[in-house]
Amino acid sequence: MSTHVGPDNARLRQVDRWWRAANYLSLGQIYLLDNPLLRQPLAPEHIKPRLLGHWGTTPGLNFLYAHLNRVISERHQQALYITGPGHGGPGMVANAYLDGTYSQIYSHITGDEDGLRRLMRQFSFPGGIPSHAAPETPGSIHEGGELGYALSHAYGAAFDNPDLLVAAVIGDGEAETGALATSWHSNKFLNPHTDGVVLPILHLNGYKIANPTVLARIPEEELTALLRGYGHTPYVFTGGFDDEDPVSTHERFAALLDEVLDHIARIKSEAEAGSTERPAWPAIVLRTPKGWTCPATVDGKVTEDSWRSHQVPISAPRDNPEHLELLQDWLHSYRPEDLFDDAGRVAEDITALAPQGPMRMSDTPYANGGLLLRDLVLPDIADHAVDVPDPGATHGAATTTLGEYLREVIRLNPETFRLFGPDEVASNRLQAVYEVTGKQWNAEYLRPEVDDHLARAGRVMEMLSEHQCQGWLEGYLLTGRHGIFTSYEAFVHIVDSMFNQHAKWLETTNQIPWRRPIASLNYLLSSHVWRQDHNGFTHQDPGFLDVVMNKKAELVRVYLPPDANTLLCTYDHCLRSRQLVNVVVAGKQPGPQFLPLEEAQAHCARGLGIWEWAGAEVAGEDPDVVLACAGDVPTLETLAAADLLRQDLPELRVRVVNVVDLMRLQDAAEHPHGLTDREFDQVFTTDAPVIFAFHGYPWLIHRLTYRRTGHPNIHVRGYKEEGTTTTPFDMVMLNDLDRYHLVMDVIDRVTSLGSRAAGLRQQMADARLRARQYTRDHGQDIPEVAEWVWPG
Amino acid sequence: MSTHVGPDNARLRQVDRWWRAANYLSLGQIYLLDNPLLRQPLAPEHIKPRLLGHWGTTPGLNFLYAHLNRVISERHQQALYITGPGHGGPGMVANAYLDGTYSQIYSHITGDEDGLRRLMRQFSFPGGIPSHAAPETPGSIHEGGELGYALSHAYGAAFDNPDLLVAAVIGDGEAETGALATSWHSNKFLNPHTDGVVLPILHLNGYKIANPTVLARIPEEELTALLRGYGHTPYVFTGGFDDEDPVSTHERFAALLDEVLDHIARIKSEAEAGSTERPAWPAIVLRTPKGWTCPATVDGKVTEDSWRSHQVPISAPRDNPEHLELLQDWLHSYRPEDLFDDAGRVAEDITALAPQGPMRMSDTPYANGGLLLRDLVLPDIADHAVDVPDPGATHGAATTTLGEYLREVIRLNPETFRLFGPDEVASNRLQAVYEVTGKQWNAEYLRPEVDDHLARAGRVMEMLSEHQCQGWLEGYLLTGRHGIFTSYEAFVHIVDSMFNQHAKWLETTNQIPWRRPIASLNYLLSSHVWRQDHNGFTHQDPGFLDVVMNKKAELVRVYLPPDANTLLCTYDHCLRSRQLVNVVVAGKQPGPQFLPLEEAQAHCARGLGIWEWAGAEVAGEDPDVVLACAGDVPTLETLAAADLLRQDLPELRVRVVNVVDLMRLQDAAEHPHGLTDREFDQVFTTDAPVIFAFHGYPWLIHRLTYRRTGHPNIHVRGYKEEGTTTTPFDMVMLNDLDRYHLVMDVIDRVTSLGSRAAGLRQQMADARLRARQYTRDHGQDIPEVAEWVWPG
Repeated sequence: MSTHVGPDNARLRQVDRWWRAANYLSLGQIYLLDNPLLRQPLAPEHIKPRLLGHWGTTPGLNFLYAHLNRVISERHQQALYITGPGHGGPGMVANAYLDGTYSQIYSHITGDEDGLRRLMRQFSFPGGIPSHAAPETPGSIHEGGELGYALSHAYGAAFDNPDLLVAAVIGDGEAETGALATSWHSNKFLNPHTDGVVLPILHLNGYKIANPTVLARIPEEELTALLRGYGHTPYVFTGGFDDEDPVSTHERFAALLDEVLDHIARIKSEAEAGSTERPAWPAIVLRTPKGWTCPATVDGKVTEDSWRSHQVPISAPRDNPEHLELLQDWLHSYRPEDLFDDAGRVAEDITALAPQGPMRMSDTPYANGGLLLRDLVLPDIADHAVDVPDPGATHGAATTTLGEYLREVIRLNPETFRLFGPDEVASNRLQAVYEVTGKQWNAEYLRPEVDDHLARAGRVMEMLSEHQCQGWLEGYLLTGRHGIFTSYEAFVHIVDSMFNQHAKWLETTNQIPWRRPIASLNYLLSSHVWRQDHNGFTHQDPGFLDVVMNKKAELVRVYLPPDANTLLCTYDHCLRSRQLVNVVVAGKQPGPQFLPLEEAQAHCARGLGIWEWAGAEVAGEDPDVVLACAGDVPTLETLAAADLLRQDLPELRVRVVNVVDLMRLQDAAEHPHGLTDREFDQVFTTDAPVIFAFHGYPWLIHRLTYRRTGHPNIHVRGYKEEGTTTTPFDMVMLNDLDRYHLVMDVIDRVTSLGSRAAGLRQQMADARLRARQYTRDHGQDIPEVAEWVWPG
Repeated sequence: MSTHVGPDNARLRQVDRWWRAANYLSLGQIYLLDNPLLRQPLAPEHIKPRLLGHWGTTPGLNFLYAHLNRVISERHQQALYITGPGHGGPGMVANAYLDGTYSQIYSHITGDEDGLRRLMRQFSFPGGIPSHAAPETPGSIHEGGELGYALSHAYGAAFDNPDLLVAAVIGDGEAETGALATSWHSNKFLNPHTDGVVLPILHLNGYKIANPTVLARIPEEELTALLRGYGHTPYVFTGGFDDEDPVSTHERFAALLDEVLDHIARIKSEAEAGSTERPAWPAIVLRTPKGWTCPATVDGKVTEDSWRSHQVPISAPRDNPEHLELLQDWLHSYRPEDLFDDAGRVAEDITALAPQGPMRMSDTPYANGGLLLRDLVLPDIADHAVDVPDPGATHGAATTTLGEYLREVIRLNPETFRLFGPDEVASNRLQAVYEVTGKQWNAEYLRPEVDDHLARAGRVMEMLSEHQCQGWLEGYLLTGRHGIFTSYEAFVHIVDSMFNQHAKWLETTNQIPWRRPIASLNYLLSSHVWRQDHNGFTHQDPGFLDVVMNKKAELVRVYLPPDANTLLCTYDHCLRSRQLVNVVVAGKQPGPQFLPLEEAQAHCARGLGIWEWAGAEVAGEDPDVVLACAGDVPTLETLAAADLLRQDLPELRVRVVNVVDLMRLQDAAEHPHGLTDREFDQVFTTDAPVIFAFHGYPWLIHRLTYRRTGHPNIHVRGYKEEGTTTTPFDMVMLNDLDRYHLVMDVIDRVTSLGSRAAGLRQQMADARLRARQYTRDHGQDIPEVAEWVWPG
């Protein structure tokens, strides 16, 4: 346990000067094209023609940054700064400029007047930088464009980084979002000894775009009860009101921050000494005026401490001389002449507040996780492969096999890999992982009989919130580690927007040389649309794939391995990849296995291929029909259809194609995994009918193939939004994806077939009726489909 | 203020008997195919072959239902019951059967032994009913398939229903979701006088599928602090532990419930007397064992009060004789012989606990909102139309005009229409509504200068949570009212999954004759992908349209009105529609207006059409090229491209087609709004190149048109995931959707053009370079595009 002596006055003057400089630079970024040091009277041509920044949150962010600088140096504390409030960009850029990181990374933004001019001009300017704490912003892992994920990201960063302090600023607008509201409970999932510390700083500046915020408009005792209810010890600070002398504000806040960090230090040392109590970690409530230090009124209207300072408090300085003068006065109020030398260099006593090298929050490697990333040590998949002497001869559950493989991944990588899921790791049959780890849990324990696999420290993170799983994993990846998120397929839509934002982050970092690649974001969707026997219609939606495909081809991958060995190969590949989003859909239900490991490896390497053993082709001749499939359930139905055709129309030349890597269907010009037209035509032909049994909504296949020569011949069966609680085979029948219907589709499209085909078509229609009736009568699938195995 | 005398013992015996009967019927639904009254020894053939129900939450739901029945009758209180926990279906069906509603609606489920057999068999059985409180379940507006929306739905139902009590049961699993976590704050948006009451009942049964729940594993003082922090008065009840006599449990809970309802009555009467204090409404914490009343152990493992009772506590009674006996004992423990008469009718003293007629929670019209729905009184759009003497001659902002129209909608429908948005109603320029209403706000007020348009009661609901906006609106619609949700286009993805669930609800209710149609769910996405000048890349995603299109054609509509009058016509249509989801994308930025009202009406009625004034066609001849467009920004670029072509290639026969109703592009066989092939070919031709400038991701147009004859000629420009903070024209250039690029696309595709075209192509490429350079230099768009107007 250690306490620190409070800062002396000189140090606080430094803090104040940093704050003023950061505010000045932020304001300059929002408004100025030129005249960055106000060496001339401010003129309209110095003002940007379009004012696109946000002042409201900025001075508070700068205030915190300045104060954190002090304690980082004094305590030699590794710290990461998360800017939850939207549009915090100008502040973060200003601070990175003051501590030298910015010029180090962007050499044209020099530490002189020219550099200042460029710094200000580039902000929210065409060809320049965005207005958020974007990937372009040093020190950021959290853009704050879409609100709600500050705390989840912070906790993800803190896991397995025991020496790290993550200061997470939460805007009071952001605090109203669902994702943020539940993320407060992350503290029940943090181990105080083996993980780092998250310091939530709830920044109550009181207003959003046009409204007060909820948390700023409840009594303080209600707010502190809320934070205590979340499991925190609240430290409430109010500053910037009633013309308080800034030095006094700094003094009070510095004292509070020291108290908070002392409290944290006590908790950490108690944990190191073996305490297993869940600590009530400190959380700061920082109440300051919105737009702090901007003009109190503009055009006679209250501006500071109101929603009117959210964006640009003075709206028209280029056209309105009064506005221009007001802006000039405002800029002068920070006394730039006092903060920059004649050459435009930041005064040395200010830069001296910055910690050294990578201790600077804008230079910390934790905010450029690729710098810290190590490859996973991966087990040999051969040790986990299912023995498949013949196709269909073995039964197994794909995810059970994957679970055994992941158990070894966890054993081999005890500090850099985690599995995230909303209460579904066991239900998705990955339970083998519990042989080597537990579910990290720091809330109350009751009795071993009901607390199974709970652990003070463990690799599995389960909370019933897809937002938390996704946010934690993002934070974990962005700080240089690896992980998987397992979710029900339908409910991964809950994080559609988070996926979008993470993909956009990756798209942008691909263009930023100093950002090092991070591990891919891996999804495992194993409780999928076709097997919701007891959950029904609400749990049936394969549309996440459509959302994913909207993002840039270079960073999204969709895999549909049809059995255990293909799933193993797929995941082995995913866990080695970088800068991607890998979506893997694979069933958790026991089913027949088709490919021995070597064939699975070859098949996955190709991404799609002809399964000669399943078709009925004649060497050297073109097929009469192609049965294509993607996904475990469609593959089974396709194989059963191929079997029916071989028995009943033996003369029909049938090709069976299985697709694991959906991106192979796209044109090589559209996607790095895409097939050339020549390759595509060799597999699918240009003229044979293709009956494509697809896991998801059928039009996705059309979207991927509409430019192919043979596209008019492709007929897709997939999920067409029909479902309820029913049997597996009834589900495929409801959507016309069943084996019998596939055979009927073949008969309808291969025109050369004779009368025998017409009879078979009727047989198939009858078989469907029989299967449906049996199901209604017996509550289960008719044995001829439930027990069907590949006759190989 | 009124207090009630506690229930006497006879009444509590009735409650207990109801509870036992409901539990028995629930258990029977999960397990029994036959032998519904246990008149024979239980045999394997009486057991369902697949056990697909969930017991865990059911007894708690039944307990609450029984107790609520009592107070509803005693207090003549209208009540709606929201079943937040997942898989509450068997309980809700059992209660509806006991109170007679079920047999009234489903006449084959008779009130005798045969009916009981059918009731039990149908549950989670092929051809039967789902396992949730689904649309098929009387009394439900909330399925609970996807978790998180119980409280939002409850508040939506309570708004403008001052006499309604909404009892909202929240599972402790659900309580971990983001949406639920923030929805507690709904109480700051409820008016205690003009709205109804929401009574949250947090059901802590302690476990999810395989884990304890967070809120059950924090100290009680932390939990009550949390509820106080949310603004509630917590009433904590623990029951069902330590072999407490059920009568004692009922007695204690009945007393607590009376206390709670007395408290509510006091708050209501204070509000009626004019109090404007925000009340600390009661919230009940109900702590009971998970699986309450099931066997304490099964196979030697703790089952009651553990996650093992989540689903089917006894897993194999059909195959395992010990399990069968245990199940028989369990069923007998409710003493069915005591609850049903010889004919299998429910004992009269039990049914007598039910309130009368529509006071029954399963028969309340509030749960079948179409029964209460009244048409909106709609203003004449002619009173709000923009005067457009010539195309492009007038400037206006589409949403400003819509705001004036909505002002009148609100004025004319003061109790049945609300506008929901996450702090964006003003930013989306609908501020005219504030002339007649305010933003309902029941948190603290400060000063009028900063609290503008806040009101104790108002038609505008703004909280920075898309989940809340969507959930409130859904609850409001499902109880028979009307509304609109305005959102940023990118962030409506936050509620993708909620949209999915609501669409599924509508899809199912379309098949249920007793469910009456409700008002459509209307989206207004007016801060869209193309105009995120100051927000940048994180705010650019038009993919919600792709999500919407995955749902059934009969219930989704997408409109892209290009100007104010078409937006008016569109919304006039949407507000009259039923059972749909209408997605309207319309810009909030000022821009040129194209169609006078009459033309707008005709154009919207057609859904798409040729704009002859914009093209350069020769009567009776086919066009050389079709320029199609959908969306305001693409329309402007298309018109500018048409203008360039008319000037520079006057001999080129150009057709301009504008699409308002995107569904018109689909085949008539696929969508009720779809064009026949003949109609489509007349507009788009079968052989001319079509350059389609689209608002969203380009492949959506291909998905809609891939079956059309002319599809190979359709070339789509849209958003291809390029963006940042920049000018409007730079945005379209980044995505090759700008006028110059469209002209280049025409030249590349119309092969008959001569050398003049090659020169024009180069001019266009040069113009692009110039425009980009100007933007980089000046921070704004080059005047020739920024000031361009249609030369008509």
